Amino acid sequence: MKSDIEIAQSAEMKEITDIAADLGFDRDDIEQYGRYKAKVKLTTYDRFLKRNDGKLVLVTAITPTPAGEGKTTTTVGLGQALNRLGKKAVIALREPSLGPTMGIKGGAAGGGYSQVLPMEDINLHFTGDIHAIGMAHNLLSAVLDNHIKQGNKLGIDPTNISWTRVVDMNDRALRNIVVGLGGKAHGIPREDHFMITVASEIMAILCLANNLKELKEKIGKIVVGYNYDGKAVTCNDLKVAGAMTALLREAIKPNLVQTLENTPAFIHGGPFANIAHGCNSIIATKLALKSGEIAVTEAGFGADLGAEKFFNIKCRYAGLHPDAVVLVATVRALKLHGGVSLDNLREENLTALKKGMDNLAKHIENIASFGLPLVVAINKFPDDSNEELAFIKERCWSIGVAVELSDVWARGGKGGIALAQKLIDILNKNESNFRYLYDTAFSIKEKIKLIAQEIYGADGVDFSKKACQQIDKYTESGYDKLPVCMAKTQSSISDNPVLKGRPRGFRVSVREINLSAGAGFLVPLTGPVLTMPGLPAQPSAELIDIDAAGKITGLF
Amino acid sequence: MKSDIEIAQSAEMKEITDIAADLGFDRDDIEQYGRYKAKVKLTTYDRFLKRNDGKLVLVTAITPTPAGEGKTTTTVGLGQALNRLGKKAVIALREPSLGPTMGIKGGAAGGGYSQVLPMEDINLHFTGDIHAIGMAHNLLSAVLDNHIKQGNKLGIDPTNISWTRVVDMNDRALRNIVVGLGGKAHGIPREDHFMITVASEIMAILCLANNLKELKEKIGKIVVGYNYDGKAVTCNDLKVAGAMTALLREAIKPNLVQTLENTPAFIHGGPFANIAHGCNSIIATKLALKSGEIAVTEAGFGADLGAEKFFNIKCRYAGLHPDAVVLVATVRALKLHGGVSLDNLREENLTALKKGMDNLAKHIENIASFGLPLVVAINKFPDDSNEELAFIKERCWSIGVAVELSDVWARGGKGGIALAQKLIDILNKNESNFRYLYDTAFSIKEKIKLIAQEIYGADGVDFSKKACQQIDKYTESGYDKLPVCMAKTQSSISDNPVLKGRPRGFRVSVREINLSAGAGFLVPLTGPVLTMPGLPAQPSAELIDIDAAGKITGLF
Repeated sequence: MKSDIEIAQSAEMKEITDIAADLGFDRDDIEQYGRYKAKVKLTTYDRFLKRNDGKLVLVTAITPTPAGEGKTTTTVGLGQALNRLGKKAVIALREPSLGPTMGIKGGAAGGGYSQVLPMEDINLHFTGDIHAIGMAHNLLSAVLDNHIKQGNKLGIDPTNISWTRVVDMNDRALRNIVVGLGGKAHGIPREDHFMITVASEIMAILCLANNLKELKEKIGKIVVGYNYDGKAVTCNDLKVAGAMTALLREAIKPNLVQTLENTPAFIHGGPFANIAHGCNSIIATKLALKSGEIAVTEAGFGADLGAEKFFNIKCRYAGLHPDAVVLVATVRALKLHGGVSLDNLREENLTALKKGMDNLAKHIENIASFGLPLVVAINKFPDDSNEELAFIKERCWSIGVAVELSDVWARGGKGGIALAQKLIDILNKNESNFRYLYDTAFSIKEKIKLIAQEIYGADGVDFSKKACQQIDKYTESGYDKLPVCMAKTQSSISDNPVLKGRPRGFRVSVREINLSAGAGFLVPLTGPVLTMPGLPAQPSAELIDIDAAGKITGLF
Repeated sequence: MKSDIEIAQSAEMKEITDIAADLGFDRDDIEQYGRYKAKVKLTTYDRFLKRNDGKLVLVTAITPTPAGEGKTTTTVGLGQALNRLGKKAVIALREPSLGPTMGIKGGAAGGGYSQVLPMEDINLHFTGDIHAIGMAHNLLSAVLDNHIKQGNKLGIDPTNISWTRVVDMNDRALRNIVVGLGGKAHGIPREDHFMITVASEIMAILCLANNLKELKEKIGKIVVGYNYDGKAVTCNDLKVAGAMTALLREAIKPNLVQTLENTPAFIHGGPFANIAHGCNSIIATKLALKSGEIAVTEAGFGADLGAEKFFNIKCRYAGLHPDAVVLVATVRALKLHGGVSLDNLREENLTALKKGMDNLAKHIENIASFGLPLVVAINKFPDDSNEELAFIKERCWSIGVAVELSDVWARGGKGGIALAQKLIDILNKNESNFRYLYDTAFSIKEKIKLIAQEIYGADGVDFSKKACQQIDKYTESGYDKLPVCMAKTQSSISDNPVLKGRPRGFRVSVREINLSAGAGFLVPLTGPVLTMPGLPAQPSAELIDIDAAGKITGLF
């Protein structure tokens, strides 16, 4: 069997100018990055904004195993299948971070016969957007410490700084550090932290900005810390919002590539869904909507994380109205929720599968609560038994939920025809009655409680003393009307990673609430959420190699 | 008077495909990055390697003021002038680092009417090479700390690690840090340091590798630290040379752009010359030599730094034979060397100028010692008086040295015609008798002494106890046959930044010697050399802005 990279390397790509032409872009509308990647100019985007929208489909998933359940693969395969059925589908995905690529999870360009190309480029630097975000972030960090060193006119309290530094790498040694050591010439010593770049507020801002002007405004509003009087110090106070935005001039332009079957795909922005809002950029999604009949996009991790934030944050800031949801489930993840250990997921186990169905059921209920029709896509794996697959289907039918097998990993678009046809039927019926879960005018505690109780199924929320103090402070400063972006484990619908299936009888603990005044949301931290992953005992990087002719192997 | 960025923004660029075609590259030979930048494929490079060489001209300078004396501007203007004279000149430059661009010195794309374009792109991220180098560097850093955390099979001594972390920013707070804090789950606490990315050994390696195979081999040889037995631990021991090289797959390809007058320019690699070897990549220089009649390249800071390393390190590893040198001098720098303070350099001062000529004389002697013919280029500034300019000329004539005024900043190629004509005369006479200063078989101390005495004019060298111990260790381990890459202040020919002109009666102090086993050189640290710059009280970043249409201002 061919590996993902072997399949990708044997693909016949179209010139990106041809892919662009299919979407109505001429040569002056794009900037090529080699023959198979391009950025779309913002002037082109502005022109396309006047067009009518296509249909918007979100691909989300049940609570995943650590390896992921194939949301990207399903999104790509579904797009390919829709095109086979004569629908002009355009895909919108997030950009991979180098952290997981070099760490444990691998790249994020889909898999098997449902991949975006060029796979190596997309997984390694792509068009440099994440690096530009990292530099904009770290410019602000350097300017902040420099300001303190150069006399600290703003009176910034070095013990009350919320702005960190970032690197796009899994590097746990940088989670907690002391900077500014070595004496007077080398700055003021203080505690500091590195996050992975995709957790940066700049990443969230880039993904939530509708244009360059908004990007700069949002960057200017970032709160970097507090002065000795406890008042917020912003990026605008440090006078570098212009330079930071200039560093993002190219990064804000959406990237166009293609799938193995030449379906166009915009890949742009890449916040994680456990520590950030987990969706690709508003600009990319809107461009997909304006240039295709059906835009297929995804949001990270389970529907409790990515989808909730997609609806309540991204759709709100973008004015988007989703039309349908594809909920990816796998036999292995359902068995995990039924109590099977990670090592035994390949063995047939109908008892565990039956038990694990609770997880799927809760996500189905949640999506229905947003007023959206859905179809469950069972993403097929080689070890799935026919009995297991049949069981999931029957259970869905029994509760009146559409369900289809998806075999896009093994068969590409052909393996997604049934799913695509079902989706088209749903879209034709036009059943979307999309609504937000909460009104942003609700209090901070109300908003968090609504998500915890309605989406996670918690009995209630416990706020730490620190969180309560922060809520008071944010409310006094007028930051209480922002949506909330939960930071929560991806391994459970609850905030406790060990609770599988559909947890009940638990309370969510909010230990701290970070303010992302620029991105425009509050981030309640629940449980032990890390903003900087670590590497495993054998990092994926050890497997990656390149030969003298430039051919890469071992990347997955 | 128009600013640099205004001149750049009003330029009429040719399509990069047209620039490429002028050099003999067809469409398949390059990868476009937008319409005005491209990378040249390594297969194209391999094909061009079979061609005959053009002439190789190095542009260097006298000991500069903090603002620099216009080496890049002269290089660009000279290239433009040569083209006006019907010579096919190709320029090879270094890529700007974001540190100086956001800090104090500004970008590095030339100035006035002698700039490379697109100026904003080149100064802000360009094609992402420096970011790729930073990620390759930081992958090794993360893997190193992870190895220790995961059981430390190699027995790496956390108190004897030489590999740092990097960021492409002037961030003094990161010079001296403690990482791995926060308890057992977050790594092993230890002292660490960030350098600016351009000081990374990976940058040096990229610039000194002749091909992808050599790149991976050199990366594998990097010594990251020592085990508890004092034995070197290499990158190959940590098994990530393949992944690091894969991260550099695009970065190793040279970048093609154009000047304001459409002269082709390769811009590739960007090590500083005070803390690294200070030249663009071997690949870019060779490609310029193979695709043009005259390749004009530059090496950083004064000739005591960049030129010495260009000759003894880069030419040696590349098998390059330079044909002539252009030595840039300015009235203001010569006055600085004659004792005038930085604030008063605009005032005419013939006495100081006369005194400062010593600095120029020493650099002339040094270049002659490498067996190379030279022409002094007086880079004209608006405040220079005719008397001052005439004085320099006469003094050069009196010692039999070719000299021409260069007015390329104000007049572009037209302002460099006399200089270009003089250079062509020199090249036609074919006077180059290039030789290295030392044989690598000499001992480490001999090599350092030769540079200090012959190039800097020192009476001798004092080695610290630590340096002596390191020399013994490197000699035992067989690392003593490498060339040396001096880390020294750029503000003086000596290792003491306050000694202007032509310092005499001083000794050079070597306090420490770093091993760059991958790049293939030893780095003796003299005086207070920093590998991470700081920001000034008002960073240039504060002046940079971008409007809603994407137009950048304030970048210089």
